[in-house]
Amino acid sequence: MTALFAAHHTSPALSGDRFTVLYRIIGSEQEARERAEDILYEQTVEFPPDLVPAGPIRDGIVGKLEDFTVRSCCCEALVSYAVETAGEELPQLLTVLFGNISIKPGIRIEEITLPDILKKSFYGPRFGIQGIRRLAKVQRRPLLCSALKPMGLSPSGLAELAGRFTDGGIDIIKDDHGLANQPFSLYRERVRSVGRMVTEVNARRSGSTIYAPNITAPFDQLLDRAYMAKEAGAGMLLIPPGIVGLDALRVLAKRSDLNLPIMAHPAFLGSYVTSPESGISHAALFGTLMRIAGADASVYPNWGGRFSFSKEECLSIARACTVEDPYFPPIFPAPGGGMSLERAAELHEAYGENALFLIGGGLFRGTGDVAANVRQFRHLVGG
Amino acid sequence: MTALFAAHHTSPALSGDRFTVLYRIIGSEQEARERAEDILYEQTVEFPPDLVPAGPIRDGIVGKLEDFTVRSCCCEALVSYAVETAGEELPQLLTVLFGNISIKPGIRIEEITLPDILKKSFYGPRFGIQGIRRLAKVQRRPLLCSALKPMGLSPSGLAELAGRFTDGGIDIIKDDHGLANQPFSLYRERVRSVGRMVTEVNARRSGSTIYAPNITAPFDQLLDRAYMAKEAGAGMLLIPPGIVGLDALRVLAKRSDLNLPIMAHPAFLGSYVTSPESGISHAALFGTLMRIAGADASVYPNWGGRFSFSKEECLSIARACTVEDPYFPPIFPAPGGGMSLERAAELHEAYGENALFLIGGGLFRGTGDVAANVRQFRHLVGG
Repeated sequence: MTALFAAHHTSPALSGDRFTVLYRIIGSEQEARERAEDILYEQTVEFPPDLVPAGPIRDGIVGKLEDFTVRSCCCEALVSYAVETAGEELPQLLTVLFGNISIKPGIRIEEITLPDILKKSFYGPRFGIQGIRRLAKVQRRPLLCSALKPMGLSPSGLAELAGRFTDGGIDIIKDDHGLANQPFSLYRERVRSVGRMVTEVNARRSGSTIYAPNITAPFDQLLDRAYMAKEAGAGMLLIPPGIVGLDALRVLAKRSDLNLPIMAHPAFLGSYVTSPESGISHAALFGTLMRIAGADASVYPNWGGRFSFSKEECLSIARACTVEDPYFPPIFPAPGGGMSLERAAELHEAYGENALFLIGGGLFRGTGDVAANVRQFRHLVGG
Repeated sequence: MTALFAAHHTSPALSGDRFTVLYRIIGSEQEARERAEDILYEQTVEFPPDLVPAGPIRDGIVGKLEDFTVRSCCCEALVSYAVETAGEELPQLLTVLFGNISIKPGIRIEEITLPDILKKSFYGPRFGIQGIRRLAKVQRRPLLCSALKPMGLSPSGLAELAGRFTDGGIDIIKDDHGLANQPFSLYRERVRSVGRMVTEVNARRSGSTIYAPNITAPFDQLLDRAYMAKEAGAGMLLIPPGIVGLDALRVLAKRSDLNLPIMAHPAFLGSYVTSPESGISHAALFGTLMRIAGADASVYPNWGGRFSFSKEECLSIARACTVEDPYFPPIFPAPGGGMSLERAAELHEAYGENALFLIGGGLFRGTGDVAANVRQFRHLVGG
């Protein structure tokens, strides 16, 4: 044993830079302290504490408990890890943050804080709020986005719908996240039909509506579909990191020859936030992590719609998307999920101007004149 | 409105083949019935039911409630979807199974059943239990696997450890899932050092120990690292689909020029199973989905170790890994997470011979003679 862990095998040179995670832990103070101690080992050496040899691995690689606070709901443990444990790679950062302990109930990530050196190693959002505003030619008001649906429409049907949205002056048209590459609407055909329609109607009315195709693609086709989208006139991409992986988003954001803003969709990620006692906080998942990966807008279900997020949870996401950061520009919180024209004023007041409002089925209500409904929605938020 | 959904836009040609999902829903019978109805729309058209036009989209694309059962814990809704909604692509299959409703608390996937036509469109496990047995040259007993750790050891330290495991005749050596591409142990250097050592010791003792490097890689380096592993002598790959995406696993499994068995690791997936009321059942996640994607072995934490899965949950995973299927060969359930030599007999009896036991820190206990501990463990399970 001793020989295996001899000094020449165990002297990682560490910079001293560390990232920190605030974990919320359920249980009595003593239980929570034990669980916090366990996290330090489980997330790094994954080795029984008594077997970790004294020296650089124990001193530098094992996580450190920086603070421990007893609260009424739970305890909070602030843990730091050497940046070298993540090796400047996002997938490995996720492993250290939550890989194995995701499987242990009663531990939730509340906050993630990266040191500058780790932020620099990720590209981050290429556009952010200001970049999307430039493309959409909207200086101050909230942006409006709707979705092409329902699944089952043909490419020409979706294109016709996109034409009406564009005619109404909507800022962004995204594919519904359920549109992929189905036989009734193949990806290439859909993206070309819709892209052409949006380009034509924009030209006719001097509009700047942006089309964001959905890239729920097989691993080995994802980049091809992104470039195909760009060629077809897309001005943004919609990506579900819960399905294709958060690092796929990072790679798309970083590609300078692609140069398209990215909207992250929460599909398949809900299980991380459905329990207040496990998983990841709304702000850390839909705000911090999406921004680290390079999303320029982060979609999540708003309060009062079809889903169950509270107003406080939604506004915590918006804060994490927009809080000042020297490396990552603020990104758009993009609340949706059962929005309506009637709620435009309320949402505008709650979020202020730096939000991207998603409205889907709601635009088909009333007279059923989609373009007129878009104009009314724009008017309601000051546009 | 009417024009948008005119017949020529809305007549998807459907085969009639459907996949089914058994959802467990929390709430009173009436609430559960309403939520089941909601699932049919949320997971497909994502459109208010009253706005979905009569015709092929309503009849064919919207999910169908095939059965509804009231149980003491909850209700169970059996829902079917047209195979065309998934477009023969795994990422989109995940979207239909659980994309948006992952965000709605109180809905859990219990079982997933694919029709033959959809199974045929995925490649599935290339090796399965029999294929891994051939490579490991072990006909009947459970297989034994240990992990290279702790994080922080140099490549030469990890290689030395691998040499001892190989000398003891372990069947599989995997990288700890926390080893990625860190400065103290760069991927290329580690995989080459360990691969060389395992090859040498195998040659000396006519052994057939398999090395499975971990590929927690950036999206755009994942394939390169897989081929680099093969070149370095790896006989298997370890992949965390919760971090790199389930479809990355499928693509690696399908590549005939790579031709390596794949072991799936549960990192970051725990939040899907920590609540009995939300997420995905243990069997469906660690059994069915991994097998569909093409894993040849699926790692999960065993009962009685450091984690909280029950014996029943673990055995349900083993059943889902091994239940007979005309398209997908049975794969190894690979329980780990705090195993010990003392439990070998108990686990052998519970799982039978078709299991792959992971033991990490436990092999360093006792005399600390790793090779001797491996031999003892093999002896305990009949090898």
